[in-house]
Amino acid sequence: MSTAIAATTREPSVPRGLKGVVVADTEVGDVRGAEGFYHYRQYSAIDLARSRTLEDVWQLMIDGALPLTQTDRSRFRAEVAGLAMIPADVRAVLPAIAASSAPLEGLRAALSLVASDRGMRPTLDLDPAARRDDALALCAVTPTLLAALWRLRSGLDVVEPDSSLGWAENYLTMVTGRRPASEHVRALEQYLITTVDHGFNASTFTARVVASTGADMGACMVAAIGALSGPLHGGAPSRALALLDEIGGAAILEAADPVDLVDAVVAPRIIRGDKIMGFGHAVYRTDDPRSLLLRDIARSLGGSTAAVAELVESRVVELLALHKPGRTLRTNVEFYAGVVMERCGIPRDMFTPTFASSRVIGWSANVLEQAADNAIIRPSARYVGPVPPQPVPHLPA
Amino acid sequence: MSTAIAATTREPSVPRGLKGVVVADTEVGDVRGAEGFYHYRQYSAIDLARSRTLEDVWQLMIDGALPLTQTDRSRFRAEVAGLAMIPADVRAVLPAIAASSAPLEGLRAALSLVASDRGMRPTLDLDPAARRDDALALCAVTPTLLAALWRLRSGLDVVEPDSSLGWAENYLTMVTGRRPASEHVRALEQYLITTVDHGFNASTFTARVVASTGADMGACMVAAIGALSGPLHGGAPSRALALLDEIGGAAILEAADPVDLVDAVVAPRIIRGDKIMGFGHAVYRTDDPRSLLLRDIARSLGGSTAAVAELVESRVVELLALHKPGRTLRTNVEFYAGVVMERCGIPRDMFTPTFASSRVIGWSANVLEQAADNAIIRPSARYVGPVPPQPVPHLPA
Repeated sequence: MSTAIAATTREPSVPRGLKGVVVADTEVGDVRGAEGFYHYRQYSAIDLARSRTLEDVWQLMIDGALPLTQTDRSRFRAEVAGLAMIPADVRAVLPAIAASSAPLEGLRAALSLVASDRGMRPTLDLDPAARRDDALALCAVTPTLLAALWRLRSGLDVVEPDSSLGWAENYLTMVTGRRPASEHVRALEQYLITTVDHGFNASTFTARVVASTGADMGACMVAAIGALSGPLHGGAPSRALALLDEIGGAAILEAADPVDLVDAVVAPRIIRGDKIMGFGHAVYRTDDPRSLLLRDIARSLGGSTAAVAELVESRVVELLALHKPGRTLRTNVEFYAGVVMERCGIPRDMFTPTFASSRVIGWSANVLEQAADNAIIRPSARYVGPVPPQPVPHLPA
Repeated sequence: MSTAIAATTREPSVPRGLKGVVVADTEVGDVRGAEGFYHYRQYSAIDLARSRTLEDVWQLMIDGALPLTQTDRSRFRAEVAGLAMIPADVRAVLPAIAASSAPLEGLRAALSLVASDRGMRPTLDLDPAARRDDALALCAVTPTLLAALWRLRSGLDVVEPDSSLGWAENYLTMVTGRRPASEHVRALEQYLITTVDHGFNASTFTARVVASTGADMGACMVAAIGALSGPLHGGAPSRALALLDEIGGAAILEAADPVDLVDAVVAPRIIRGDKIMGFGHAVYRTDDPRSLLLRDIARSLGGSTAAVAELVESRVVELLALHKPGRTLRTNVEFYAGVVMERCGIPRDMFTPTFASSRVIGWSANVLEQAADNAIIRPSARYVGPVPPQPVPHLPA
């Protein structure tokens, strides 16, 4: 009897912020925080970053399978070739968007316009093939839009995409205006693969909520960009580099006791209870697997920042263990992401946009999954104000 | 023992789509579907529509209290005067936006640009007064943007806002290009008041999810617009008018037996199990209170469409009771909304944008409430794909 009542109660008791509440079944991927492991479909994301191209992972996320032959791979590459071009009507307004907006904000408007320009209709009214077309188009154009918005805002000429290049080489060329070194292309590609998806985070959830209303792919992606821009979600890989600078940058490699320099900046903050940028994660209770990969990459690329980062990392982890003994605080994805991106030539104000530039792939895979088996996502709120209806007070003339 | 396990389980079992799951406490308002009642703060929304101005209700939603004197009212009006103007840099790109986008899609891009142009920063980094400023600015400019986007798309000159006019008169003037009759102004104002908010619907929830990441007000509103554009959420008041046309429009008033004309169109659809546009609602199990008010308004405005609508309504309700005896299917907000908007001179492709034009007030009140006592909204998904990690297949060269 009491079970029946519990099952039909209008307001199940759930944790604040829906923490841990399952809202969807997914085959896109997951994060296992306790194990320091995350995956895209059935593959470790880190294994994919070590052995595959970003386009391969894109195909995996959108179509559910990796290419198994060069023919498969070429077919997908041919399909997306040309989609990176910004439609002319949108290209014409980019300077105005760039004038008022930082790249990630500007992407909201620009991607919305691309969706309209391509005549994208509600996912509810489309068959799976048409939804997939829309997903590919928006993913492909995002890096181009971000690079163009940044260059326009910086007073630089826009670099057109080159469909003969892979995603990462194309992006690096469009941002920097130079043909990049192959080791920087591969390093950035591995970073971009690690950021394609990461479980059911706030921007992914946002994309699925909007998708659940049957809205067009543009509406879903633009909403997710907004969620990613929130400081509690997207983070800012540039903050970790700012910390390294504050500690003394490359100069500490020459210092008699570099540990003192780290302690001078970091210890008072830890004692005060401040968050140390680049350390700690909401889900991982051990090493962030992205951080481990990016440390390897940073080390292989060389340079003083990587050396400074390793030195600072090891001392900060010691300090955290000393002052916060109950918690496992390790470097998160931000810490070495900034080191790798800087080494590859990405400007600091493009760190978060670069993080977003491949995350669109994860969002769109989630939107396609939501659209394929949809139920509108619409929870409730509990009204806790004064009891209505109260008489509307008269306003004297 | 088993209670402790239930309380700590990672995946509480909740209904699909989070239906009925309470995700926030709110003082903004609520819907009581069984009673056919909804309220803004402690007042019946219908009572407010009958006795107050839209600006009064705006103040209620944002500041938590109705103006009680003409001085209170004037102070708020003075505060928002001028905010309806589109910033010049955004105005310059509106023709390009209008060329590719229907008004509601175009609003995503345009409102995003207004937020950037005004330099809106993350709500997380703002004090309540600054957040309120951002909310007022985006609400005030939305009707202007929608009217301008529609007129540009229709090849008409843009009509500038006039800060000496009330919201509804201003909007009607900007859309139609004519000074409207006072009964049309008041009718539209009452409609706009009824659409300000409506419980914790999908767009409101979207706004709160994005707000929960600490993102700027523009990101929250743009995301909500996307959710509203979904066919499963925003609806389309023009569809109900299309049904009246299909049945025969004003001609049925002269017909010998108009009921036969209704039956010929509607009965086969009901029998087939099709949804009849303008009837039925996800929450209301009795009359939709908005529909009752709008029927009164439509009747008072006169015109053949109102007469046709009443005739069709009464017969369709009979048919639904006959063929769907277990369900209470009444007219929803769409049915008479279209009749009222058409009578006031709003073009049909502006019906849904007009619905959205005052809903921004409800969204922004929800964003302010979320930001004032925030916890990130981030549920989970259950991974149901093949067990990872599987070895990444080698791709032969």
